[in-house]
Amino acid sequence: MQFDDVIETRRSVHQYADDDIDDDVLRELLEQATFAPSSYNLQPWEFLVLRDEESKRRLREVAHGQEHVTDAAAVVVVLGNLDPSAHAERIARDKFEKGYLPDEDAVESQLETIERRAEGPREARRRWTRQSSTLAAMTLMHAAWNREIASCPMGGFDAEDLREAFDVSEEYEPVMLVTLGYPAEDAPDLERPRKLRRPVEEVVHFESFDPAVRPDAPPADD
Amino acid sequence: MQFDDVIETRRSVHQYADDDIDDDVLRELLEQATFAPSSYNLQPWEFLVLRDEESKRRLREVAHGQEHVTDAAAVVVVLGNLDPSAHAERIARDKFEKGYLPDEDAVESQLETIERRAEGPREARRRWTRQSSTLAAMTLMHAAWNREIASCPMGGFDAEDLREAFDVSEEYEPVMLVTLGYPAEDAPDLERPRKLRRPVEEVVHFESFDPAVRPDAPPADD
Repeated sequence: MQFDDVIETRRSVHQYADDDIDDDVLRELLEQATFAPSSYNLQPWEFLVLRDEESKRRLREVAHGQEHVTDAAAVVVVLGNLDPSAHAERIARDKFEKGYLPDEDAVESQLETIERRAEGPREARRRWTRQSSTLAAMTLMHAAWNREIASCPMGGFDAEDLREAFDVSEEYEPVMLVTLGYPAEDAPDLERPRKLRRPVEEVVHFESFDPAVRPDAPPADD
Repeated sequence: MQFDDVIETRRSVHQYADDDIDDDVLRELLEQATFAPSSYNLQPWEFLVLRDEESKRRLREVAHGQEHVTDAAAVVVVLGNLDPSAHAERIARDKFEKGYLPDEDAVESQLETIERRAEGPREARRRWTRQSSTLAAMTLMHAAWNREIASCPMGGFDAEDLREAFDVSEEYEPVMLVTLGYPAEDAPDLERPRKLRRPVEEVVHFESFDPAVRPDAPPADD
């Protein structure tokens, strides 16, 4: 598909057809997700893919019973490693070998910076891993729609219940769920007008920051 | 461009040509960024766009002197509103009008949920606004590359200095910087081999979560 069409026609879809997603197609779109950038290229993302009925049923319980979890052909639980140093060594070495870092000193310096972060507060690591993993999650949803597979990102789930149900240790942050599936015929979420988007004139500020402060204020003049 | 080409050839680029980005083009790619999904469609993102030399110079100071900040034609400071209720009323009402919410009770219930979050801990709101805003930031970088405009996401800056330099109040979270510009001829970041990506076989787990725990362990068998 043309890029513009993917971006401009993607919608969050809750109504899915019964069709499965081919293994090779699923692999391709997960691979495209890994092309996302990340802080220091640390790629903290992990994708737990659930397709079995029993797995999806368990996940649905964790996700407050939302029906599209079991209706979707697959659900991807996006997890973020909370340890910035987990893969740092080979990633820094790769950068040196390919010329992105000039010498061994630069490798060591980068590893030291990452190590300091690894020893930093858990809250900062939660923000970091969520942010990097979300870059991949967005790419995944667009990659899916490029193959006519609809998706819906979900933040509404109980993280502790998820840990217990799927044996996710405290070393990983549950970031979001992404349902995937071919849309149902006449899926209402594709038929209805697109939900409101705050206009560019309201969200973009040139040179100085002057947002509309009052809730639901009219667009700022900028 | 074809979607696959955008995703598979995008790279983080630090070397830019002197060419400016046309106003209309910049507007188009910022608009595409707003097509990203967000939790409850709350769209907490704000984009502070810096193109003046003096603005970029100030930002470069905030960003530890990194040269590509001033070399880029524009830098987008992605900010996230920390108040989930800021635009909630008109967004919930829009959902009702378009059939995404069935009745007034559903509108009220959604607004109450959002209000509870707005009264919740600041750390939770920081995670939320960063995550939703990052979905838009990823879309922005892909939208740019679709127009042959390279980008580089940057997390390395001093948030407090940024607040001071650009008058960003505590009501907004500085999420990331995104440099934008046409790449320099023979830009090394486009000429070098792509940086390592952790292979799909390592990051994808089917039905049960069994990541490689030891740092730099070989890919898990799954």
